[in-house]
Amino acid sequence: MDYKFSDSLKNMKPSEIRELLKYARAKNFISLSGGMPSPDSFPYSDLKEIINEVIDNYGSLALQYGNTGGLNELRQEIGRLVKETESFTANEMQILVTSGSQQGLYELAKVMANPGDAIITEEPTYVGAISAFDANKLDMHSVPMDDNGLLTEELEAEIVKLSRSGKKPKFIYTIPTFQNPTGLTMSLERRKHLLEISYKYEIPVVEDNPYGELRFEGSRVPSIKSLDTQESVIYLGTFSKIMCPGFRIGFTIAPESYTNRANLLKQALDLSSSTFSQYVAWLYLKRDVIKRMIPRAVSMYRKKKDAMLKALEQNFPEGSTWSRPKGGMFIWAKIHPKINTTEMLAEAVQEGVSYVSGNSFSPSRSQGNAMRLNFTFPTEEQISEGISKISRIIERRIEVMKTA
Amino acid sequence: MDYKFSDSLKNMKPSEIRELLKYARAKNFISLSGGMPSPDSFPYSDLKEIINEVIDNYGSLALQYGNTGGLNELRQEIGRLVKETESFTANEMQILVTSGSQQGLYELAKVMANPGDAIITEEPTYVGAISAFDANKLDMHSVPMDDNGLLTEELEAEIVKLSRSGKKPKFIYTIPTFQNPTGLTMSLERRKHLLEISYKYEIPVVEDNPYGELRFEGSRVPSIKSLDTQESVIYLGTFSKIMCPGFRIGFTIAPESYTNRANLLKQALDLSSSTFSQYVAWLYLKRDVIKRMIPRAVSMYRKKKDAMLKALEQNFPEGSTWSRPKGGMFIWAKIHPKINTTEMLAEAVQEGVSYVSGNSFSPSRSQGNAMRLNFTFPTEEQISEGISKISRIIERRIEVMKTA
Repeated sequence: MDYKFSDSLKNMKPSEIRELLKYARAKNFISLSGGMPSPDSFPYSDLKEIINEVIDNYGSLALQYGNTGGLNELRQEIGRLVKETESFTANEMQILVTSGSQQGLYELAKVMANPGDAIITEEPTYVGAISAFDANKLDMHSVPMDDNGLLTEELEAEIVKLSRSGKKPKFIYTIPTFQNPTGLTMSLERRKHLLEISYKYEIPVVEDNPYGELRFEGSRVPSIKSLDTQESVIYLGTFSKIMCPGFRIGFTIAPESYTNRANLLKQALDLSSSTFSQYVAWLYLKRDVIKRMIPRAVSMYRKKKDAMLKALEQNFPEGSTWSRPKGGMFIWAKIHPKINTTEMLAEAVQEGVSYVSGNSFSPSRSQGNAMRLNFTFPTEEQISEGISKISRIIERRIEVMKTA
Repeated sequence: MDYKFSDSLKNMKPSEIRELLKYARAKNFISLSGGMPSPDSFPYSDLKEIINEVIDNYGSLALQYGNTGGLNELRQEIGRLVKETESFTANEMQILVTSGSQQGLYELAKVMANPGDAIITEEPTYVGAISAFDANKLDMHSVPMDDNGLLTEELEAEIVKLSRSGKKPKFIYTIPTFQNPTGLTMSLERRKHLLEISYKYEIPVVEDNPYGELRFEGSRVPSIKSLDTQESVIYLGTFSKIMCPGFRIGFTIAPESYTNRANLLKQALDLSSSTFSQYVAWLYLKRDVIKRMIPRAVSMYRKKKDAMLKALEQNFPEGSTWSRPKGGMFIWAKIHPKINTTEMLAEAVQEGVSYVSGNSFSPSRSQGNAMRLNFTFPTEEQISEGISKISRIIERRIEVMKTA
């Protein structure tokens, strides 16, 4: 039978990252592409204790269906987590457990906007957010960043421009801390300005904060949510970086009017997130395992980041630039303006190394000569070899251009 | 800030079942409402062995991100499962792991139909399917059933009627075996007729089969998918009833053109289902735990079903009717035509017992005097007491009507 499919997915394309994942674990292949934590950061022995406690003491509940909003005990612990780490308070009804923060992004798109509605993102922005927004046919407008994060004056200009054509963005999406893909962090001043703009134009801010705990140096910048006095921030969090990704647990913190609607949608999406996973995440927070796990991960990742910066210094052709993140998982590099990193990727993969091309993260498709480099998953040796492989490919291409 | 939400969820209402879940575990409360397996059916000791093996031997992979389509080893085992149980073959690319079969339903709605498109369901049908279809604004047309399942002649009449108004249904959704909510099973003859209609009008059939393994008596009726010669059937399955619901693992089996699109959507929905859960499900199938677990569950549920039928015989007022399922989890009862079960529910809950009202399952809102009764979660004593409580409430209402 010939299937007639819907038009619903026509804006979507296969994710380069998901495609590249299959190489990530192949022998001798150097993956600088995935957004994956190092398996050496996983708290195996703590998790082993926890899963056994879950099945022994909570089995009949943890193996059963759970309520859609999430396990109450877990929501309480998430409340404690964000209070301790990000200095804001949230009650259980304002906290919704999600199947990874990817589900939080999908819910966001569908709860806040109708197909065709305008929204604002950073330029570049997280590829998974683009995917969630595309699946809901949102009209993305992206605003550039500098070393202090989102350019809030340009943001305001974009809002004014949109309003002249009768459009009002439904939300402003930002990853203010150790942004994916750039690694950049929005300054306190810009955060305050962003909130002023949010209040002035009555546009909610979505603060996606998967990497906040992974700070290698410098001091913490307050979360936008903690600065918010008008309930104008929707906050997304995840266990993927503070525990491990394999249980697929994230959370959304927002006014109850929002979580009620997201909850309704979640009934249709997957009924509830894995109850077993939620019990694991609950005991993980309750036992403060995070306080041992995070410092270990941070010291591991700091070294890897330094190794990547060093390799870039030593190898990348003159004229290249790259970010110098104080935390997170990524470095963003820009190479010769005439080299297209999407087109160059096949050659890199053939030579046994991968990155993610800049335009994967670009609603405006303006990042043709950029690439995202992940330093958390590969070993230090792989980082050094991988960067040197990529450098040689770039150099060859520059050479060809010169002789052409 | 005043949030302006989208219209996307305007067809959705809070699920009665999810609401009632909170009572299900309260002390002395008798829940005949949930679609939950008995916690006594869960294979605790096998699962305990398995989760320890997962963390010891597969930890670095099982705690990491996985690929969107699902763990390959699990997909192979799902292929073996459906071959052994339902006598059809499927390769890995035709199998997509989902976060519960609820996610399979959501993907189905979005991949196969645009908002406003017509689809056909059974009358009544599964509330979670209604929820997934509502969230995607599908136009549901429901076709009645008798003791042999979907009335396929009426189905054809509905298709013809729709085509006269220029509409072509995008798929026909059925739960042919031990249907939720009625417990009824479609006869072989009707299955064949359904396929003929599917081929004639070129409308795919969606076969949702969560309960097929829970047969108490009679002999297996071949799955529609096993009778299909034209790739016209999309098959949905789940581990919730053959293992336990808490890991949230389901699967969709369909032509590759479908799974490719569903896979693309799944990137936006949750990136991938829990890798840990998938490793658990894989080892569960690989070790054939299912072959010990299912006979135990079946003998437990057969007794409970008999207890419920006996309680209904002994207690339910004259004029009531109910289904006599040969498997699954539910009995469907119809009471006095002037009693509205939605309206009566508050009284039942007050008296410490719950059911799900008929109209929760009714796209046409024509099941006002029906109720779904679950016999797998409550104990035999609770079944007997619960049915007798509900009977007394009905009787009081009949009495009031007589004297009015």
